[in-house]
Amino acid sequence: MSAMNRTTDDLRDRGRTPPDQSRLCIHTATTRPLPLEAAVDEYVRAGVRGITVWRDALAGRSARAAGDRIRRAGLEVVSLCRGGFFVNADEEERIVAIEENRSAVREAAELGAPLVVLVCGADPAVPLPLAREQIRTGIEAVLPLASQLGVKLAIEPLHPMYADTRSAITDLATANRMCEEIDSPALGVAVDVYHLWFDPSLETEIERAGERVLAFHVCDWRTPTRDLLTDRGLMGEGCIDIPAIRGWVEAAGFDGFIEVEIFSTEYWALEQRSYIERIVGAYEAHV
Amino acid sequence: MSAMNRTTDDLRDRGRTPPDQSRLCIHTATTRPLPLEAAVDEYVRAGVRGITVWRDALAGRSARAAGDRIRRAGLEVVSLCRGGFFVNADEEERIVAIEENRSAVREAAELGAPLVVLVCGADPAVPLPLAREQIRTGIEAVLPLASQLGVKLAIEPLHPMYADTRSAITDLATANRMCEEIDSPALGVAVDVYHLWFDPSLETEIERAGERVLAFHVCDWRTPTRDLLTDRGLMGEGCIDIPAIRGWVEAAGFDGFIEVEIFSTEYWALEQRSYIERIVGAYEAHV
Repeated sequence: MSAMNRTTDDLRDRGRTPPDQSRLCIHTATTRPLPLEAAVDEYVRAGVRGITVWRDALAGRSARAAGDRIRRAGLEVVSLCRGGFFVNADEEERIVAIEENRSAVREAAELGAPLVVLVCGADPAVPLPLAREQIRTGIEAVLPLASQLGVKLAIEPLHPMYADTRSAITDLATANRMCEEIDSPALGVAVDVYHLWFDPSLETEIERAGERVLAFHVCDWRTPTRDLLTDRGLMGEGCIDIPAIRGWVEAAGFDGFIEVEIFSTEYWALEQRSYIERIVGAYEAHV
Repeated sequence: MSAMNRTTDDLRDRGRTPPDQSRLCIHTATTRPLPLEAAVDEYVRAGVRGITVWRDALAGRSARAAGDRIRRAGLEVVSLCRGGFFVNADEEERIVAIEENRSAVREAAELGAPLVVLVCGADPAVPLPLAREQIRTGIEAVLPLASQLGVKLAIEPLHPMYADTRSAITDLATANRMCEEIDSPALGVAVDVYHLWFDPSLETEIERAGERVLAFHVCDWRTPTRDLLTDRGLMGEGCIDIPAIRGWVEAAGFDGFIEVEIFSTEYWALEQRSYIERIVGAYEAHV
């Protein structure tokens, strides 16, 4: 077969080594219909070893007690999602956001999560260069507390289709530059294949990030994608070359959990136990 | 007002010089309900001076006669949209695509269009690096005929949300690199604000493109964007800093038409004469 006839699946299969199942982590947002306690039980039942807790899943609970319960069940808390949203045309709101991020860092410490993932924020009324200044200011304001409590922060570059309201940081190069400028051991990046898969400089930028890669998120890009927010696919259902990107983050030194983060109205409508089994299968076959 | 309190509108207003109305061009796809002849009449009525013709608008017509009619009405043909779609897992289909692009070039020559805009193509079954090779092969196969007929080709980088099925070229850097490597006077780029507005390297890459900027497309990014394909906004309705980007393409030497390309089920449902008047107003106020 000539080079011009190879297709995605051929290339993906070539030399792929499935990741160890002990590295599988699921986000509570992936199984959103399940309350935290049920999610923990179902993940354990399916042999999953890590959990990333979304803050809404902690509502009405003690973070410390939730963390203890998670660990007693045999799961590791991988990260707390999510902080950020530092960008606002209104200065008062930016101060509120910084306080909210400090609360998230305290919550992470209580939960026993070593990391808070940052969806850095955007506001259609704030031009992107200014938004990036606001993000930097916000991160710098939160980092001292994070360092003090032993919690790291990860800038997660988002897909450019979220540049109006969710993140003015839409590529890994910009996240890397900000990390280099701030230069704190408590600051790194989260690599999510959904947001970055199309970037021709991704391999180079992951190498540049090196040990600053603090998290690795997987799902897939469906064709067609029917909704900008809630139509992500299970690994293997789309066109993202996840094994290649996993290879790049591992070459950069990352050996942590591989986190399944899927927002999908279609999957949230399923019976969640069998959905979690499908996630485990997709992880084994397509990551 | 401090730098941190400036908002998009403040920055946009600062020093903006409205573009000359003689540079306004509308794409037939923007007013899709109108047959070509009606579009021509309505554009002229509204004082528009340029038209970009989509190939579907020529169905059942002689391109030469259509071009003559357009010019007699007082409009200039700015470009023909669109060629491209060079990427396919199937080699036979790639050969068909190249022939189809040669037909588009002949059609442009007959119409009197100096430019064919390329939506370069993508296929979820073809990995992006390979897709980019197929695009380069396709462009190189079409360029000799284009040069011979005096028609230029413009690579239009598309928004990354189209990287699965429409274009494996999702940033201006990649388009520039391909132009530099192929190095033909008949090849350049099309800058569409919708696809590129969020890119921190956009100003630099437009400067790098220089005289290779062959087309400039405008519309706006709406919040929320309700559909990935057909929910573009009129200029001024969204968060794109169009005057800034116009400044960059003009600094690069571009003084051609400013093309309004809006796919919108909402606007296609309107009475098109008053919609065209709104386009003219939005062009004067927000470009």
